[in-house]
Amino acid sequence: MERKLINSPSFFIGKGEGDNLISFGSGQPDLPPPDEVFDITKNYRSFKYGLIQGQPHLREALSRFYEDSNPDDFVITNGASEAIDLSLRAVHALTGGSKVLLFRPYYYSYPHNVRFADMEAKYSDLKEGKIDIEDFKKQIEGCKAVIINSPANPTGSVQDKETLLEIDKVCREKGIYILSDNVYKDLVYDDEAFYLEGEHVITIDSFSKSYSMCGIRVGYLYTPNKDFVDKVIEMKTHTSMNTGLMAQEMAFAATNVPESFLLETLETWRKRRDLFYRGMLDLGLDVIKPEGAFYLFPKIKNPDKAINDLYYDHNLIAYSGSWFGDDERMRFSYALDVEKIEIGLERLGKYLEG
Amino acid sequence: MERKLINSPSFFIGKGEGDNLISFGSGQPDLPPPDEVFDITKNYRSFKYGLIQGQPHLREALSRFYEDSNPDDFVITNGASEAIDLSLRAVHALTGGSKVLLFRPYYYSYPHNVRFADMEAKYSDLKEGKIDIEDFKKQIEGCKAVIINSPANPTGSVQDKETLLEIDKVCREKGIYILSDNVYKDLVYDDEAFYLEGEHVITIDSFSKSYSMCGIRVGYLYTPNKDFVDKVIEMKTHTSMNTGLMAQEMAFAATNVPESFLLETLETWRKRRDLFYRGMLDLGLDVIKPEGAFYLFPKIKNPDKAINDLYYDHNLIAYSGSWFGDDERMRFSYALDVEKIEIGLERLGKYLEG
Repeated sequence: MERKLINSPSFFIGKGEGDNLISFGSGQPDLPPPDEVFDITKNYRSFKYGLIQGQPHLREALSRFYEDSNPDDFVITNGASEAIDLSLRAVHALTGGSKVLLFRPYYYSYPHNVRFADMEAKYSDLKEGKIDIEDFKKQIEGCKAVIINSPANPTGSVQDKETLLEIDKVCREKGIYILSDNVYKDLVYDDEAFYLEGEHVITIDSFSKSYSMCGIRVGYLYTPNKDFVDKVIEMKTHTSMNTGLMAQEMAFAATNVPESFLLETLETWRKRRDLFYRGMLDLGLDVIKPEGAFYLFPKIKNPDKAINDLYYDHNLIAYSGSWFGDDERMRFSYALDVEKIEIGLERLGKYLEG
Repeated sequence: MERKLINSPSFFIGKGEGDNLISFGSGQPDLPPPDEVFDITKNYRSFKYGLIQGQPHLREALSRFYEDSNPDDFVITNGASEAIDLSLRAVHALTGGSKVLLFRPYYYSYPHNVRFADMEAKYSDLKEGKIDIEDFKKQIEGCKAVIINSPANPTGSVQDKETLLEIDKVCREKGIYILSDNVYKDLVYDDEAFYLEGEHVITIDSFSKSYSMCGIRVGYLYTPNKDFVDKVIEMKTHTSMNTGLMAQEMAFAATNVPESFLLETLETWRKRRDLFYRGMLDLGLDVIKPEGAFYLFPKIKNPDKAINDLYYDHNLIAYSGSWFGDDERMRFSYALDVEKIEIGLERLGKYLEG
């Protein structure tokens, strides 16, 4: 096989379905959505524009998940991605500011989101996945927003309540927006995760991870900050209009699914996590134990080279940590059957021996 | 009724369905999409991420509509709105430029799109809906892009081939991008419309107007310019990811609908246009005869006041020309039955007498 250099996740698109390839690459659930999500599509016939802000019954349903919220506090978006894009552009428009703080390692898209909102990213390095509050206090100077992702992609770490409350205090005092990206909130294995709320907090979430609806593209942002909601609606009016109406109906169906769906899904993820984490320890890897999400982020030497060797010599897909701001680690998504995880571990073991 | 001041189209959202209200407001077809569009949804079960660029079979189908194009020249977007947003942001990113030329009156969203792409709009005034090529040559100086919309919202005018070829020559020489917004291309009543193509031309279109799929949100951009396509894909990777997959299947179904659907729809629009245009002339109004799209744009004194009086005193919705950059005219969409158009004309007549 010709060894074309792999240097971005897009190389792997369309790969991983083959018989003999094990993919720990893409971060999307492999389990299907609840049946209810597809049931609604059978008799759907609407075709006119909907409200830019999103369908009222979907926002009404979402408001039941957030205490003290009301339907007008939500904007339905094309996945969490658009919610992040619009939020950052709104921060830029409302403050005129140019700097946004990211914790590193970060979700792959964040630095690009900041750049495409015509702003500049600053970084605070995590310590074994956790926020270093002293470093945060230094780096936040001059920033107009900070993005928090807990549980996090790629580390799987959940941030402590105490740390988040300290961040909240600083941001309240300085008038800094907190973008709280909670897309993995239903994938927390042990203790509960804590989430900030308030006038300066923009909560971002989606149906993609919780309900396996990545390709359907429904997310939302929620904030009690009316000016912020209005600015986002103003932007979305011109940049994409309403989020697809049938997709919103599918999301609405998901909000009515019994909680047992989420709990059963979580048990599947937990089994995979336990097996994969144990396997990595057995291979002698230095790896953070994921408290949520579905990624392992072990230390592996020269990850940019390793992803090539793993793919071409061992039929194994994994992502380089350098794509997430850490060039000493690799990201392994465990969105696949335990049987495949075991085969993948064997292959990884062979690579590490070699 | 309390007379709350009407000063933007959003005032009318959710209005117009009542028994006694005639709405010439929103620019969306009232006729349903072809049945095929909904048929595909019954058995649809996919849920994973799709290609950011769009589903290959949809791009393949689209490439059959454009001579010499190939599927890689297309990016499927959340309606034409997202195609415009991403195109302008790509122009900004690729050129570092800050000025975009718009013809005035313009589609409501364009100035906002330019602003949200962190650029600045310049204007060239149309003469009775037609481009003034000498003024264009003056105003284009310093611009990195120009948006052409033919047939146009709000005038219904189609631009002449000779004028477009002159614009093309200037833009080729100066390296200026042409964003050709062709969303009304299937709604041309008389002569055929002419469309530019080339490395510097970004064709923008959607399924919304041709197939009555506004709320479903599928559009696209097409250009043989590979660098431009790559930049748009790079942005969309982070700002919204793939366009909703079921929506793309619905669009694909539309590409297989016999041409007779479009031709029959066009005849419906033509009857409405003829009736409404004739009726406005009979009322003594100075109005451009629409060559395409579904809007009439007559001269009416003080339109910002008129929309309030028409709504509160005559149960009639129409938009102020000032929202489109012309404060001596009003926009009337004729996306409704001929019976309602006749009632609307009567009411407009009473207003004009008063």
